[in-house]
Amino acid sequence: MTLKLHCFGESGNAYKAALALELSGLDWEPIFVDFFNGAARTDAFRALNPMAEVPVLVDGETVLTQSGVIQLYVTEKTGRFGGTSPEDQREVLRWMFWDNHKLSSVAGNTRFLMNFLPEDKRPADVIAFQLGRLKAAYGVLEAHLAGREWIVGTAPTHADFCCCGYLFYPENFGFDRAAWPHIDAWLSRLESLPGWKHPYDLMTPARPENRRDTAKG
Amino acid sequence: MTLKLHCFGESGNAYKAALALELSGLDWEPIFVDFFNGAARTDAFRALNPMAEVPVLVDGETVLTQSGVIQLYVTEKTGRFGGTSPEDQREVLRWMFWDNHKLSSVAGNTRFLMNFLPEDKRPADVIAFQLGRLKAAYGVLEAHLAGREWIVGTAPTHADFCCCGYLFYPENFGFDRAAWPHIDAWLSRLESLPGWKHPYDLMTPARPENRRDTAKG
Repeated sequence: MTLKLHCFGESGNAYKAALALELSGLDWEPIFVDFFNGAARTDAFRALNPMAEVPVLVDGETVLTQSGVIQLYVTEKTGRFGGTSPEDQREVLRWMFWDNHKLSSVAGNTRFLMNFLPEDKRPADVIAFQLGRLKAAYGVLEAHLAGREWIVGTAPTHADFCCCGYLFYPENFGFDRAAWPHIDAWLSRLESLPGWKHPYDLMTPARPENRRDTAKG
Repeated sequence: MTLKLHCFGESGNAYKAALALELSGLDWEPIFVDFFNGAARTDAFRALNPMAEVPVLVDGETVLTQSGVIQLYVTEKTGRFGGTSPEDQREVLRWMFWDNHKLSSVAGNTRFLMNFLPEDKRPADVIAFQLGRLKAAYGVLEAHLAGREWIVGTAPTHADFCCCGYLFYPENFGFDRAAWPHIDAWLSRLESLPGWKHPYDLMTPARPENRRDTAKG
């Protein structure tokens, strides 16, 4: 049965799950959620996820939310991307929790404040504060990737899919790849993986200006 | 061998791990980190955790960071608190990731900004923004706890230990238990668990004004 991922292109959290699904070989399809027009706040969607958020994975009777849970379900079904030893499994989880706390949640929030709010409603002090926290997070990731191809072990894992969740987006949220050489090389490595797709190609963007010809779902 | 948890009382993330350890029956001890006097930034501590943060768990040769990873290690060793069915195990993880993203990280940050910075350096706009996000998170937790004793299933799990991580602290960060009756009842339920201890009793506080006679470590 085809796994269904309710998502939209601008959601970095959805991208983490979608990228893991796409690279896993599992049979899946994206189901577009017209998020900025309120599609996640309908009664029907809230019946699926009371938190009115994406991503949501539907596998028959099983409904899962939180990108990390969906990613670990991919591992449950395929054995892939979760780390190949107990130590590596803990390392993958460590980076998934770190990303959730320090990188992707701040990046997503900052990107929203800087791009998806009307220009006269963007809180300058809050944005400056978040940009400072992001810079610290980039520094941690940059240092970790020195002399390393992947965040954990010698192959891509959910640690990589989590940490890259927002880093391919073109909108300005203070991230300039060229300023972080190890991160830049690692992102290129991800882009070179057979089957890799940009978020706006893997899932339909909700904002028309982000749509590309090859968008699915 | 006694498990060692490097921690200090004010760290809600350390509390999540410490509470799980304390209630698990495992042989463990807190090792005090004098955080506000720079003890996490020494070369010796960075050798243990390059991110200069607590908690850190040391079990012989195994060194673990990220509270969620330490909590899951407790489950690995004891079978406890991780959920008793595959569905419940995913639910526990879902709430651990949700807490990490939406509740504890925001609570910890807000508590820091409102209490641990000098009064003239507290950024009012940022604090107001974070308080708004916290209120939304309390609302989600309050709604979920209606008609429920524990966040997942019928017994305490890591979901409960994560979400309560900051909620026993006396410092003001916009959380008033009395305003959230289901959360209030659930916190009382946690306090009634045999072996439960307040963060400032379970781990030595770094700030002298928070110390109590029964503080360990």
